[in-house]
Amino acid sequence: MRLLVVGTLAYDSVETPHGKRDNILGGSASYAATCASYFCPVQMVGIVGSDFGEEHLEFFRGRGIDTTGVERAGGATFRWSGVYEENMNIRHTLETQLNVLERFEPTLPDSYRDAEYAILGNFDPTLQLRVLEQMRRPRVVALDTMNFWIEDYRAALERTLERVHLLLINDEEARQLSGEDTLFKAARAVRDMGPSMLVIKLGEHGAMLFDDHGVFTTPALVLDSFVDPTGAGDSFAGGMLGFLAARGGADDATLRQAMVVATVMASFSVQDFSIDGVRQLTPERVRGRVNDYRAMTQVDLEGVGIA
Amino acid sequence: MRLLVVGTLAYDSVETPHGKRDNILGGSASYAATCASYFCPVQMVGIVGSDFGEEHLEFFRGRGIDTTGVERAGGATFRWSGVYEENMNIRHTLETQLNVLERFEPTLPDSYRDAEYAILGNFDPTLQLRVLEQMRRPRVVALDTMNFWIEDYRAALERTLERVHLLLINDEEARQLSGEDTLFKAARAVRDMGPSMLVIKLGEHGAMLFDDHGVFTTPALVLDSFVDPTGAGDSFAGGMLGFLAARGGADDATLRQAMVVATVMASFSVQDFSIDGVRQLTPERVRGRVNDYRAMTQVDLEGVGIA
Repeated sequence: MRLLVVGTLAYDSVETPHGKRDNILGGSASYAATCASYFCPVQMVGIVGSDFGEEHLEFFRGRGIDTTGVERAGGATFRWSGVYEENMNIRHTLETQLNVLERFEPTLPDSYRDAEYAILGNFDPTLQLRVLEQMRRPRVVALDTMNFWIEDYRAALERTLERVHLLLINDEEARQLSGEDTLFKAARAVRDMGPSMLVIKLGEHGAMLFDDHGVFTTPALVLDSFVDPTGAGDSFAGGMLGFLAARGGADDATLRQAMVVATVMASFSVQDFSIDGVRQLTPERVRGRVNDYRAMTQVDLEGVGIA
Repeated sequence: MRLLVVGTLAYDSVETPHGKRDNILGGSASYAATCASYFCPVQMVGIVGSDFGEEHLEFFRGRGIDTTGVERAGGATFRWSGVYEENMNIRHTLETQLNVLERFEPTLPDSYRDAEYAILGNFDPTLQLRVLEQMRRPRVVALDTMNFWIEDYRAALERTLERVHLLLINDEEARQLSGEDTLFKAARAVRDMGPSMLVIKLGEHGAMLFDDHGVFTTPALVLDSFVDPTGAGDSFAGGMLGFLAARGGADDATLRQAMVVATVMASFSVQDFSIDGVRQLTPERVRGRVNDYRAMTQVDLEGVGIA
């Protein structure tokens, strides 16, 4: 199955305790599409300025990503710069230049409209809904959002959520969206708003899936090097939806596998700047890390209890 | 095998978003010994004042806990009061009255000295070492500590760590003790200081075990109610060491099971104030929660990867 990835294409300037990079390829669509492309055909939608390097689009196409839906507009590409604190759990945005993104009105080329799987990156919920309405047979539409939309665009976001199947947010956003303190209650409240599947991302502590079958938790992989957290969530989403599209399903067993795949893709992503950690993955490296995950979580609980 | 539990017996005054309680039974030894008592014989060491209710000691004895090593001194019992913020990840200490604890010089009754398993709660590392030296054949000695001792008593703590087998600390403490930013590197550095087994506690995000076989991660159980986090770490330690003492071993497979048992005991502990969540556990309730853990983490990774 094909996967539609709608999001930002950006130039980032990032500083972490491990270095500083200026004007590197970033944006939610870059990470998500690259990670998904290891699993299924991807159709990308985004907007770039006249300064956006053709080599990036060539890289995407080289990975089998359809870039028909990437609009090149006059002006500068979206730019973000930020700095991470010592342990990389907290980041500060230094500057956001929307540039061409201000004119972003995502339109699906006709050849995209039959995609059944989609990732709608973090942007205006009204536009997210407009994309969704252009899909002829949406089956698993995943949505990302953030505190800004939850706080100031709640009505629009709620309308969009009614149509979405899978929501990916972090723990703070889940609490904010639901008004509940425990993640258990927050998940119930958020799933009542529409999405039957909810992923709560916990950063370095992994992620949780809530679906009709209950809860599934995935710890993050414990890594010897950790360079730049930017794009980890988008890599997670790309791996997850790419895997689901490849399997053509979203039953509980497949969703659990997809969560582990997503964890693995995010783990590669944070080990280098930009999308460099996920540019060149091999079946052996991916399988190796799936095995690491298994080793890290395996336990025999037969007969464990009190007398 | 028997388990020695050395720690505080306290009266706590606690406020969480779910209520406020004054002068309730607390202290690391209360939680740890109660939780461990479901698995193995426990020998308790601590100090209480003349105001400490005899009914608490009777409760402990009723659970098969040996209280010969609990000294009753003149004066008031150790008192702690604190308040938790909205989502209970952050707590503020309002007051600490050491009272009789200032005179605490833990001495093991002769009948305790052959215990092979021990939990040395969070107190002065010089005293922790003195207890350890009274043990005739220590096999798995677990230690708790905190930022205060790491910062101001580092030399004494390092001497104690050389003799300890298992250290239980949280992620911040691991970073502080090691000076490393990633938990992977922090774990390596801390294990080089002495303890071959290290548990890093992540609060609501579970815990990690680092031993000679690598890493094992346990997410916390996702609970519908969550009342008071006080004592969660001590309940965790009690469950973990109680299980190890009962099994008489600390190989990797048993340690993993012990981590899950610890997670289960902590989950009961946080669902009520004081030790009320772990006062009356049944094999069925414990087994039910072990099964919840299994359901929450189970995934079939056969054939998962990229082509």
